[in-house]
Amino acid sequence: MISSPLIEKLIESLKCLPGVGSKSAQRMTLHLLERDRVAAKALSVALSQAADQVGNCTFCRILTEESICGICANPRRDKGSICVVESPADVYAIEHTGSYRGLYFVLMGHLSPIDGIGPAQLGLETLLARVMEENIAEVIIACNPTVEGDATSYYISEQLRETKAILSRIAHGVPVGGELEYVDGGTLTHAFAGRRPIEVEDNE
Amino acid sequence: MISSPLIEKLIESLKCLPGVGSKSAQRMTLHLLERDRVAAKALSVALSQAADQVGNCTFCRILTEESICGICANPRRDKGSICVVESPADVYAIEHTGSYRGLYFVLMGHLSPIDGIGPAQLGLETLLARVMEENIAEVIIACNPTVEGDATSYYISEQLRETKAILSRIAHGVPVGGELEYVDGGTLTHAFAGRRPIEVEDNE
Repeated sequence: MISSPLIEKLIESLKCLPGVGSKSAQRMTLHLLERDRVAAKALSVALSQAADQVGNCTFCRILTEESICGICANPRRDKGSICVVESPADVYAIEHTGSYRGLYFVLMGHLSPIDGIGPAQLGLETLLARVMEENIAEVIIACNPTVEGDATSYYISEQLRETKAILSRIAHGVPVGGELEYVDGGTLTHAFAGRRPIEVEDNE
Repeated sequence: MISSPLIEKLIESLKCLPGVGSKSAQRMTLHLLERDRVAAKALSVALSQAADQVGNCTFCRILTEESICGICANPRRDKGSICVVESPADVYAIEHTGSYRGLYFVLMGHLSPIDGIGPAQLGLETLLARVMEENIAEVIIACNPTVEGDATSYYISEQLRETKAILSRIAHGVPVGGELEYVDGGTLTHAFAGRRPIEVEDNE
């Protein structure tokens, strides 16, 4: 239908983006080629650089091109507190509220044995080592309030119950079944303020 | 908020795509970096190659990396008929119906004096020269049925009335005020079948 292999390849490649189908990809391709080739080149460079250079922070596993991310390296952050989240997007959402000044630990997913994601893939040994060695006073678990997130939270709290750290989970002010990434700042702030200690024995 | 310049740059660059805002750009960035770096690299290469190598067909002005596009070079196309459209997306939509076997001329826009787009920018001299030199029997004008498209159609038919070619415009079976690119194939096929000669003198 489209008589240019390069254009077809670009349309096909754009479909790797979430939420982009054939029609959107075609529209994006023609927009870039007809009106904004400078932006297309800039996007090409940004994609290539990010894909090559972005790795994970040694401490918190968030995506960054440095070996230690800006949050972990920031001397003004509270080094006695770690907030455990599922993805970098959750960190961005929490940082956006400005209501938390501690450090993070990014699981990069949640426990999902059927997909081969176990404690090792989530870096839970690293987390346990950090909590024990760095004299962490509080661990706030902020996994998504979904079935998988609840299971992951429970597993982490089981792992950490022998440490000295106070364990808590952000309050269920956030809508259950939703994705943390999309909660508004006010709700997230309330969820942080209303966090409560985990009673591991409860069948909650 | 996001502690990585490369990630921020990628999010910013993705916002050049039509229909992509901050939240979608962030979601796309994290999807690519967390789950599909191979696709990110492939997209980077496709963008760069297309932006560098795709130009316009010498004959019909459609986007292509060759000097003559596949449609113009195809010996089985009817060389006596030219369909004038506003954009390459319109060609793709018409080709998709399979109801037209002639050639095209892509204006790459419509007359819009306020944006500095006049007959020269639309290549109308080239079109006129082609119609006269190549013994074109029929020119089908398929500009969008919008105010600008109507004005452009009228201007083109004025330019071509001295040539021997039969002028026609695709029937207004297509929804008025809409974009040709989004019309379903059946409607487009009917619009082609129901085309009628232009009576330049009418105030239609």
